[in-house]
Amino acid sequence: MNIHRSGTFVMPFHRMAEKANGGRVYGLDRHLAHAFLHAIGNPPLRLILWDGREISGKAASSAVGMVIHDRGAFWRLMINPLLHFGDDYSAGRIDIEGGLVQFMETVYRSMACVPKFSRKSDPAAYRRNQPSLNSLSGSRRNIHHHYDIGNDFYRLWLDEEMLYTCAYFPDPATSLEDAQIAKMDLVCRKLRLQPGQTVVEAGCGWGALARHMAKRYGVSVKAYNISHEQIAYARQRAKTDGLEQRVEYIEDDYRAIDGTYDAFVSVGMMEHVGPDHYRELGSVINRSLKEQGLGLIHTIGQNCSRPMSPWFLQRIFPGSYPPTLREMMMLLEPLEFTVLDVENLRLHYARTCEHWLERFERNLDRVQEMFDEPFIRAWRLYLSGCVANFNIGALQLFQVVFSRHSNNRIPWTRAHLTSSAGEL
Amino acid sequence: MNIHRSGTFVMPFHRMAEKANGGRVYGLDRHLAHAFLHAIGNPPLRLILWDGREISGKAASSAVGMVIHDRGAFWRLMINPLLHFGDDYSAGRIDIEGGLVQFMETVYRSMACVPKFSRKSDPAAYRRNQPSLNSLSGSRRNIHHHYDIGNDFYRLWLDEEMLYTCAYFPDPATSLEDAQIAKMDLVCRKLRLQPGQTVVEAGCGWGALARHMAKRYGVSVKAYNISHEQIAYARQRAKTDGLEQRVEYIEDDYRAIDGTYDAFVSVGMMEHVGPDHYRELGSVINRSLKEQGLGLIHTIGQNCSRPMSPWFLQRIFPGSYPPTLREMMMLLEPLEFTVLDVENLRLHYARTCEHWLERFERNLDRVQEMFDEPFIRAWRLYLSGCVANFNIGALQLFQVVFSRHSNNRIPWTRAHLTSSAGEL
Repeated sequence: MNIHRSGTFVMPFHRMAEKANGGRVYGLDRHLAHAFLHAIGNPPLRLILWDGREISGKAASSAVGMVIHDRGAFWRLMINPLLHFGDDYSAGRIDIEGGLVQFMETVYRSMACVPKFSRKSDPAAYRRNQPSLNSLSGSRRNIHHHYDIGNDFYRLWLDEEMLYTCAYFPDPATSLEDAQIAKMDLVCRKLRLQPGQTVVEAGCGWGALARHMAKRYGVSVKAYNISHEQIAYARQRAKTDGLEQRVEYIEDDYRAIDGTYDAFVSVGMMEHVGPDHYRELGSVINRSLKEQGLGLIHTIGQNCSRPMSPWFLQRIFPGSYPPTLREMMMLLEPLEFTVLDVENLRLHYARTCEHWLERFERNLDRVQEMFDEPFIRAWRLYLSGCVANFNIGALQLFQVVFSRHSNNRIPWTRAHLTSSAGEL
Repeated sequence: MNIHRSGTFVMPFHRMAEKANGGRVYGLDRHLAHAFLHAIGNPPLRLILWDGREISGKAASSAVGMVIHDRGAFWRLMINPLLHFGDDYSAGRIDIEGGLVQFMETVYRSMACVPKFSRKSDPAAYRRNQPSLNSLSGSRRNIHHHYDIGNDFYRLWLDEEMLYTCAYFPDPATSLEDAQIAKMDLVCRKLRLQPGQTVVEAGCGWGALARHMAKRYGVSVKAYNISHEQIAYARQRAKTDGLEQRVEYIEDDYRAIDGTYDAFVSVGMMEHVGPDHYRELGSVINRSLKEQGLGLIHTIGQNCSRPMSPWFLQRIFPGSYPPTLREMMMLLEPLEFTVLDVENLRLHYARTCEHWLERFERNLDRVQEMFDEPFIRAWRLYLSGCVANFNIGALQLFQVVFSRHSNNRIPWTRAHLTSSAGEL
């Protein structure tokens, strides 16, 4: 069995057909199942076939099982597991026993040890499996696909302020609500915001951070986003909160940012920019940051350049790509920005996604009123996959603070991160 | 006047000769001086020639002046300023008015604005101007050149514990002694050292950090260094302090490290490794770090890949090269190490070098008993240049903490950096 670097299995179809023709389908299924388990590194996983047969790998005990309801799903899994597992799970033709998160952690950990699933950085990783890259129009399509499916849906499982990015838990037991506020404070302190300053935000989601900065730190914010639904919500909230004078939400691409500011901030947008456009983002920052300004980029990242799975890119987040730190430097190095601070909040994102998944399941009744079963199963798979990928270290969360190289009014130590100096 | 990217001026010699033959040397000097000032971006700088003539650039006022004592030095300066300025300053053929640090900050800041002095990253930066690269034997030569010139000399201007790396000043007014201890505690806390753990140190200088870790954090340390003088001193100190059972100093290259450890630490060595050998250093770390181990690299760095000046490389630190963060990732990314934390201590290194320079001048009488005037002037220039380069942002100081990608026993927040949990 050959495996392409993108994870596609190339099956020896002629041999499969021969065996089937010889009437040994029963043995073939078993053979294929073992070959499949071997190819993904023999994880402690049971495969339960449509007729009740159970095939286990070499591992002694298997806490998790994959129930495959028909031979079509089984064969599709062999051909391109990274695409068809997601689709057939969504369609209910595959089920998981023992917990979806545990299943994915088990399988991903195992696959990571298989040399064939190359762990080497792939310079073309961003382009692989992408339905649509992030040009101005491509970005609009990609963002619309995910973020415009309905604010009411997101309200069911996000926190009250609708933050859809990694929270910061001072303690693992902190509530999601408090952890999102702690995250916003962490960002504001890293930027050392002072009353009267101006901030530009690239990719503002439903606008919570912009409102928080204005309300708690006394700054004026221009916040950009190309999601129509999110901007509409953000504007409404700013009006309700009486922040219209200090927060301006602009429905436009980050590439349209103009003016100069004391701080540049982007939380959870760089994942949607794509390495082809890092230099463009860099030049936007370069033209908008004042001489003594500070910048912060908060983004999902990874340790090596690897493509996201085709299922994730086609069904969940088209155009997305989490950069490595080296790739983030492609943005900062050509413009001589100085990196002041990098913090990795990987385990905080696993915890955040656990909260989201928990709330999603808790509000399942209401989700079912909005969406059909395949959507719900796809979303469950997506959120569970996020928990698993952050837990096993396949994804990271980088907060990078930077300044111009000539700026000596940078923080002397990190003492400002724990004080509430700039807060109102 | 053309300027190569390495900063060498190419002079129109035939035209100079014509002018000189025509008896217009006086006018030629003035012309060249203006051309020189223009080429370095017209800094607010006075050139004072051997006959007392003073030439100023376009800047309104000039706090600093360069006194050139003879025409030979003047012409050499035109031909290759980045080499000959240092040599002729050392030889006393050039003097500086208004302070050496101020002079260098003024000139470097100005040069940074000249497009001809390319600010673009140069992939071959490491190799340029190098007298000897960092093979096993090259490293030995390079390290011997700088570190084996006499412990008695370094004792005159370093702190009591002989740390020759960036200190950490909780407050700018902290003493150098306290700041070096604070730096060692910062490193130990970032590594979350616990009593009974094992640590390997690559490049241990005079051994202060290894002793501090053993004494204050109860760990066992193996510390490597190829400087004979430093290792001899370190061993003597460990004996005096009764630490021989817990600190082993090994006179060998980092590439000879064996065994596995709870922590890998390297403070101020990566500058001497060279990008050609980052992968080698990575594989050393990979084979020596336990599954749950933490690593820390503390190194001078820069924002863009640029060569050090030929003077610095030939006279002060052969083989040295400060990596960009992107280049540091060449070490970490292929092995899938996770970056947990990056802190930039640039201004702390400027302050450290100010202390060293101050102590050097304070102990000048005793330095003069050891070395001749050209050495003393070269060393003054080197230390002043360090202050200037850190002050203007041409050099950075990165502390990078990392783990294996699968390690979930990483610090949850940064709270451990301010607590004294592991300390004895």
